[in-house]
Amino acid sequence: MRRTLGSCYYPEHWPEEIWAEDARRMAEAGLTWVRIGEFAWSRLEATPGHLTWDWLDRAIGTLGGAGLKVVLGTPTATPPRWMLDRHPDMLAIDEKGRPRGFGSRRHYDFSHAGYREEARRIARLLAERYGRNPHVHAWQIDNEYGCHYTTLSWSEAARQGFRDWLAQKYQSPDALNRAWGNVFWSMDYATFDEIDLPNLTVTEANPAHRLDFHRYASAQVTLFNRAQVEEIRKLSDRPILHNYMGRETSFDHWQVGRDLDAASWDSYPIGFLSDRLENTPERKARFLRQGDPDNQAFHHDLYRGVGGMGAGRYTPGGRFWIMEQQPGPVNWAPWNPAPLPGMARLWAWEAFAHGAEAVLYFRWRQAPFAQEQMHAGLLRPDSAPAPALAEARQVADEIAGMPEAGCAPGDVALVFDYESCWAWDIQPQGADFDGFRLAMSAYRACRRAGLNVDIVPPDIADLSPWPMVLAPGVMILSGPLRAALSSYTGRALLGPRTDVKTPDFAIPVPLGPRLEGVTSVLTESLPPDASEPLEAGGAFRHWREWLEGEARVYERTTDGRAAIMGADHLRYLAGWPDDDAFHRIVSDLAREAGLHPVDLPDGLRLRDTETHRFLLNYNPEPVTWDGVTIAAAGVHWTPR
Amino acid sequence: MRRTLGSCYYPEHWPEEIWAEDARRMAEAGLTWVRIGEFAWSRLEATPGHLTWDWLDRAIGTLGGAGLKVVLGTPTATPPRWMLDRHPDMLAIDEKGRPRGFGSRRHYDFSHAGYREEARRIARLLAERYGRNPHVHAWQIDNEYGCHYTTLSWSEAARQGFRDWLAQKYQSPDALNRAWGNVFWSMDYATFDEIDLPNLTVTEANPAHRLDFHRYASAQVTLFNRAQVEEIRKLSDRPILHNYMGRETSFDHWQVGRDLDAASWDSYPIGFLSDRLENTPERKARFLRQGDPDNQAFHHDLYRGVGGMGAGRYTPGGRFWIMEQQPGPVNWAPWNPAPLPGMARLWAWEAFAHGAEAVLYFRWRQAPFAQEQMHAGLLRPDSAPAPALAEARQVADEIAGMPEAGCAPGDVALVFDYESCWAWDIQPQGADFDGFRLAMSAYRACRRAGLNVDIVPPDIADLSPWPMVLAPGVMILSGPLRAALSSYTGRALLGPRTDVKTPDFAIPVPLGPRLEGVTSVLTESLPPDASEPLEAGGAFRHWREWLEGEARVYERTTDGRAAIMGADHLRYLAGWPDDDAFHRIVSDLAREAGLHPVDLPDGLRLRDTETHRFLLNYNPEPVTWDGVTIAAAGVHWTPR
Amino acid sequence: MRRTLGSCYYPEHWPEEIWAEDARRMAEAGLTWVRIGEFAWSRLEATPGHLTWDWLDRAIGTLGGAGLKVVLGTPTATPPRWMLDRHPDMLAIDEKGRPRGFGSRRHYDFSHAGYREEARRIARLLAERYGRNPHVHAWQIDNEYGCHYTTLSWSEAARQGFRDWLAQKYQSPDALNRAWGNVFWSMDYATFDEIDLPNLTVTEANPAHRLDFHRYASAQVTLFNRAQVEEIRKLSDRPILHNYMGRETSFDHWQVGRDLDAASWDSYPIGFLSDRLENTPERKARFLRQGDPDNQAFHHDLYRGVGGMGAGRYTPGGRFWIMEQQPGPVNWAPWNPAPLPGMARLWAWEAFAHGAEAVLYFRWRQAPFAQEQMHAGLLRPDSAPAPALAEARQVADEIAGMPEAGCAPGDVALVFDYESCWAWDIQPQGADFDGFRLAMSAYRACRRAGLNVDIVPPDIADLSPWPMVLAPGVMILSGPLRAALSSYTGRALLGPRTDVKTPDFAIPVPLGPRLEGVTSVLTESLPPDASEPLEAGGAFRHWREWLEGEARVYERTTDGRAAIMGADHLRYLAGWPDDDAFHRIVSDLAREAGLHPVDLPDGLRLRDTETHRFLLNYNPEPVTWDGVTIAAAGVHWTPR
Ligand SMILES: [Zn+2]
Ligand SMILES: [Zn+2]
Ligand SMILES: [Zn+2]
Repeated sequence: MRRTLGSCYYPEHWPEEIWAEDARRMAEAGLTWVRIGEFAWSRLEATPGHLTWDWLDRAIGTLGGAGLKVVLGTPTATPPRWMLDRHPDMLAIDEKGRPRGFGSRRHYDFSHAGYREEARRIARLLAERYGRNPHVHAWQIDNEYGCHYTTLSWSEAARQGFRDWLAQKYQSPDALNRAWGNVFWSMDYATFDEIDLPNLTVTEANPAHRLDFHRYASAQVTLFNRAQVEEIRKLSDRPILHNYMGRETSFDHWQVGRDLDAASWDSYPIGFLSDRLENTPERKARFLRQGDPDNQAFHHDLYRGVGGMGAGRYTPGGRFWIMEQQPGPVNWAPWNPAPLPGMARLWAWEAFAHGAEAVLYFRWRQAPFAQEQMHAGLLRPDSAPAPALAEARQVADEIAGMPEAGCAPGDVALVFDYESCWAWDIQPQGADFDGFRLAMSAYRACRRAGLNVDIVPPDIADLSPWPMVLAPGVMILSGPLRAALSSYTGRALLGPRTDVKTPDFAIPVPLGPRLEGVTSVLTESLPPDASEPLEAGGAFRHWREWLEGEARVYERTTDGRAAIMGADHLRYLAGWPDDDAFHRIVSDLAREAGLHPVDLPDGLRLRDTETHRFLLNYNPEPVTWDGVTIAAAGVHWTPR
Repeated sequence: MRRTLGSCYYPEHWPEEIWAEDARRMAEAGLTWVRIGEFAWSRLEATPGHLTWDWLDRAIGTLGGAGLKVVLGTPTATPPRWMLDRHPDMLAIDEKGRPRGFGSRRHYDFSHAGYREEARRIARLLAERYGRNPHVHAWQIDNEYGCHYTTLSWSEAARQGFRDWLAQKYQSPDALNRAWGNVFWSMDYATFDEIDLPNLTVTEANPAHRLDFHRYASAQVTLFNRAQVEEIRKLSDRPILHNYMGRETSFDHWQVGRDLDAASWDSYPIGFLSDRLENTPERKARFLRQGDPDNQAFHHDLYRGVGGMGAGRYTPGGRFWIMEQQPGPVNWAPWNPAPLPGMARLWAWEAFAHGAEAVLYFRWRQAPFAQEQMHAGLLRPDSAPAPALAEARQVADEIAGMPEAGCAPGDVALVFDYESCWAWDIQPQGADFDGFRLAMSAYRACRRAGLNVDIVPPDIADLSPWPMVLAPGVMILSGPLRAALSSYTGRALLGPRTDVKTPDFAIPVPLGPRLEGVTSVLTESLPPDASEPLEAGGAFRHWREWLEGEARVYERTTDGRAAIMGADHLRYLAGWPDDDAFHRIVSDLAREAGLHPVDLPDGLRLRDTETHRFLLNYNPEPVTWDGVTIAAAGVHWTPR
Repeated sequence: MRRTLGSCYYPEHWPEEIWAEDARRMAEAGLTWVRIGEFAWSRLEATPGHLTWDWLDRAIGTLGGAGLKVVLGTPTATPPRWMLDRHPDMLAIDEKGRPRGFGSRRHYDFSHAGYREEARRIARLLAERYGRNPHVHAWQIDNEYGCHYTTLSWSEAARQGFRDWLAQKYQSPDALNRAWGNVFWSMDYATFDEIDLPNLTVTEANPAHRLDFHRYASAQVTLFNRAQVEEIRKLSDRPILHNYMGRETSFDHWQVGRDLDAASWDSYPIGFLSDRLENTPERKARFLRQGDPDNQAFHHDLYRGVGGMGAGRYTPGGRFWIMEQQPGPVNWAPWNPAPLPGMARLWAWEAFAHGAEAVLYFRWRQAPFAQEQMHAGLLRPDSAPAPALAEARQVADEIAGMPEAGCAPGDVALVFDYESCWAWDIQPQGADFDGFRLAMSAYRACRRAGLNVDIVPPDIADLSPWPMVLAPGVMILSGPLRAALSSYTGRALLGPRTDVKTPDFAIPVPLGPRLEGVTSVLTESLPPDASEPLEAGGAFRHWREWLEGEARVYERTTDGRAAIMGADHLRYLAGWPDDDAFHRIVSDLAREAGLHPVDLPDGLRLRDTETHRFLLNYNPEPVTWDGVTIAAAGVHWTPR
């Protein structure tokens, strides 16, 4: 696999006179790709039905003519103002019942049939015009689904759609009442038309009601995406992607991934550290200009997995890109410092080490106007090079000197389930509990142990490729995964809170998990200053369960309860270990699985490809490990 | 008085096949009571007017047949979905003007006349069917009035009702304008129809406007409750109760209590510690699995008082129950740990020591579905015993070995006034000020001193039974209480902020309190890190007043101002003492009153009944006091 | 200039029988001024069109007869209830789209033409009646514009008005699209009627859209004020004022000031410390009963500047008053302690030292009713003297013994720009960034250095009166100021973030600032625990810029970047220095400018008048400086 670079470009933002020079400089900087078009609807169709292709024709021609490959985006994340006149009810409605107005982006409702057809129409028109254009080498559908809390809309369209969806799923109100347990507070429905969306209730709505609504909403994202994919597929054989976001768990990416050829994501390491990741204040300060050392890798491994859904079912070694890579300070995080020198290079190499095909910096030139005017690019607004340009150039040179290679096979499969994230969100039981956070804890433990991780979907049917499997917090266990685990011969660790709910979001009777000799009989959530110490060191935090049963106890809390229990190949973890304990547990299990875990210093991480081992130092000072000294913000690679 | 146990049971949640076995196990566990029915409306009346009694007949028969006494609840806290079609405007409206939708519970407006009649109707139908049923030994009206902020509704029904209420109270707009001081910001009204509810104003609404609205809203709770009581009284001679909540001050429980035979409350010690009580982080951690050592006792003493209103006026030694007792982790607090072993027993004995007639654990079996599926019961969802069951069994055995006894007469009367809580809420003057919190401070001081407390209403007319009286924060002093205090011969301590407002929520001129030789001339609120040290030790926090007058000064702050001032029998406290100072002040006063205060260690509390002294250890380790060692989470009793 | 005292009085709140006695006591206390009428609309016009003048005639007569001068307020901040029947759509709408109801004050929309005419009408009627009244010596228009977040209203009236305003400004939608950069997210408009207000968007609205809306809203305040001024000017030759608020930056006071004869402001030092000023917890505790030692002075210097706009353009030495001076605890801050003894005197003398003509205590007597019943006055509600009365009396005596004098000419001109405050608010880039806060930092540095500051408008055209100029955070530099700076021969320090945006709220290309040899090429915001140390001591916090260019570097950060750069007369500051560094930088510059900076102890401040140097000690203990010991909360003056 050839590694490539690129950048995001908005010809409509700049005078046509400078397009050619921009294209020349991109090529000169070693860039291969240029992404365009995804916010340009108002310039493509200034009035309904009147398409203006000429400027885009020329832009594609100019860029392609300079040797660049174009990724063409559909502009459906930014419907123009006139769209509201055609579909006044297409605006998403927030959880408090207020329309989310025009004037920024993503102001559409995924449930709105009329807008979905408009999206299909513009995708078809683009495909008709550029489906065979020699410079268009890939497609992007829409932009950052779910961003700005847009998966869930509490609209009339959603209400009607949800009722239909429920009617199809349950067939009768009685079946729904039974499934949801509506007897509980006299919440029984006599017809599907009585069912409202689960917002604005007096106290919490039925969790089954909420989970079904989230399933419905996630399905609308899939359908919205599919409508566009269908049109483009008919007219182009180039790969179709979407650019997912970081820590965006509001819809099921595995499902959307089935319709796409590759995944991509938008990586803003410093912004994400600041605005969406749990860390102590000390770690936030230490990695202020680098980002969390595990967050990018987590998403690379996740989206490589999502990219692997292209065949309709999961296959390891999926294709993925970084569609937007932070190059400097951004504008949208609470605070926006500049990256440490070297990080724009490190982030790119880390992506490649995890199997990325392409890394596109966002954006080519900083826009001097509108919402993101304080968002750095590879060029400054005055077209002078910004600091990241030289780092991109260096990466381009380094790529040229390296063999083509994908990533090494995974040591560990980590099951990541979006539905469980919704379930945690709906029923956290502890105020600081979160499904992504738990998965990240498990992932961090693996990364500290130097293990190569594949993140896999919750319905995976074959676990045989991995010596080790982790499935934390997968509340509802799928049939395929249950079957795969039952015949698994490596080392699998489920829990905490795995296989403890039915698909209807109820507690199963008999109690879960359905693991021989292990029953979870009581659950406790703990405030941040409480913990349950483990005999072997460290402690459970946030969450612990009381286990019963005849299975072997591998480890105990100091109050004598089972902390890990089960059998050789399949065990259950009864709580949420702190970082040190999780690393110890994962490392012990890895050794049993025949792997060779290490203990990497904080901020130093490694990743193997088919040909090399990469060491990435997120620290602001050099680190020496295994005889090698890696510079601050440095990357080091050795052949394997 | 015979002490009894019970549990809350929902036959409609379970297959009828297991009812008999459940009943048998309840009886076997030593339970006397079973509460049923309060959320079952949709199963009693699935479509309007079509009543389905058979299942409830059989459930009552089965439970009664096993020797259990049934408490039958009216299901008015959970109107079924069809009720909204009959009364589309019955939904409560939140303070921001949004309807509070169907899908959970308590979604009705106390002001809505139509729904009030529906509530009356279902109560009548239940009473007609079960008023003479031999197994139905008590009634519960509705469930947890006020819970989920439901006392106040900002609806059109409330607006119309409030206007009528104001017209009746003031007779003329001019009288209202004078009473409220509407001249202040040109807020004068020409007609009652011009008056809106006091929400959504630009800056704070007139406090008199807000207080009157709160009085109106509280009166609607009383009327709503009374409508149902009236129907049941006609057809049953069994006692009628309501289950009040913890730290729920949004309506006047004393008034509701006048219409009921006994009070009851829902005691969730661990949940309440976590979600509604002020404590330092250290104390929250120390009592994480036990609850605040004074909170349950406070509510026992309060609701014993409210139970004493059954005759229409307060009588000491009222009847009260614990209608819901936490048995294990709950689902609704920010964090939900399990109780320390022994607490399910301790809480029950503490209730009995304070005079409870019955303690019902909530609930018999954990429901595996819907909102409270993570709320523990005496049984697990799989019907195996949960930890609390054995503790309940132990309490049942212990009860059998004890004589019948009520609680000992009170050493101290603590005046608790809901209206003052509203007044504090409306005009806290300091951001962390709260009427309940102040009352709890005074109560804690008494409990630490080992004093038996009776909590009494603000219109109490006879204080002669008590050697000592505390009346903190009773902003508006009633005529009867003023009269009772003026002839009181024990030791009474008023203040801070007692008798300092007129019934119209104005500052009286001459200034209050109307205490000979004591005038409160200036008030200050203090941020958490500020305090005013007391010469005798400790400090005022949150609040202090400047007193003037000729009365004797008993104690001073170090800046020379009077801290306690007055005469032998009646004194005024000029600030909010910290815990140590409050204990010292209360102890000194108790000695003057001829009592024998002690200084109990933190977490150890005592209560006297007619026959025994009970020692209750909330600590997670044993405590030795007065020659006795009480185990962690232990109860000790000795004959008096 | 004769210094005078006064108080705010509400005859309509009190029985007419006590007016004469009140007036006598005011005069006896040494007060000159009495402000009346500004909330009395409902008593002047109880029903529409029926004016009741008699009581006001008598009140003015009584007060004037006692020798007092009346300031008569227009009551437009409190339209009566009937006004809503005439103009149901006059209510302001909050940012969430909810009408802001009747029942407090300021419930009108500045954009509402109908209400603006009502305001004009009542102003005209008052002027007709009292324009030549011998006792009416000044006028106040409305009350505290902007208070309670009332400048911005998201109403239909505002929407229509904004569209018109935009149409006038831009003439064509295309021009607007270009100016705002609406191409960015397909936000182009085809007609002005498509443009909504920039609230309730999915993610942030276009900053140019927001800034224009803020400009529009600020202009409405000016027009609303002007309507009343026009009427009164026709009929009275007395000075017309408005009472501005503290830290109120939501409208452009410089513009409003053009239509008025003098400025005034409402000074609540303790309330403001508590509710609207950044300080460490330690400083908040230290100055709890005194207020921030620089906040009052800042506003005095600011409003003296605003008062200097009376001629239509800025002139130094403008006229200003304190229309409301805190006399004791207030009711509206989070906590409300009493002032330290002496502060009511200190605050008054500080105002006089900064050039105030009059200081009016708010209010004469504490009102026992309605919203502000806990707000102290000079008298208690029972008419006994409150502590501040004696201090006011002392000030009156001291005034009599002092010569008439204005303040000394300024050492430093500090440019303060409301538009930049809006721009910071719209695009803070760092979560704790704020334009006022930055200006206050610069001001504090000057005050600590003992410099006399004049605060000047952003379009000032002549800087020659000042040896030194500071212009921090003035994002958009005006033409006149640019011209004045280019010919300036003193020492001017711009930045951080000065001259870095175009008037359309875009980044200029070439990049700003337009300062020879200095370009700001990258900006970073820093979280509170991060900083960039300066070689010369201290550090940049919150914000730093990367400078490039050929100009001289005066100071560097320890990472080698320029911290101050430019030329002798005009330099650029590349970050936000901490307090110590800012004081050092200002002091060094002052010495270069030929001034003699000092280093005053914390809490001690000085101000020079034409005749005296005043030393003001905000500390709770005596301070000795320059051989003089100033008592706690004390004032010391020496002839210059
Ligand atoms: Zn986004
Ligand atoms: Zn409740
Ligand atoms: Zn105000």
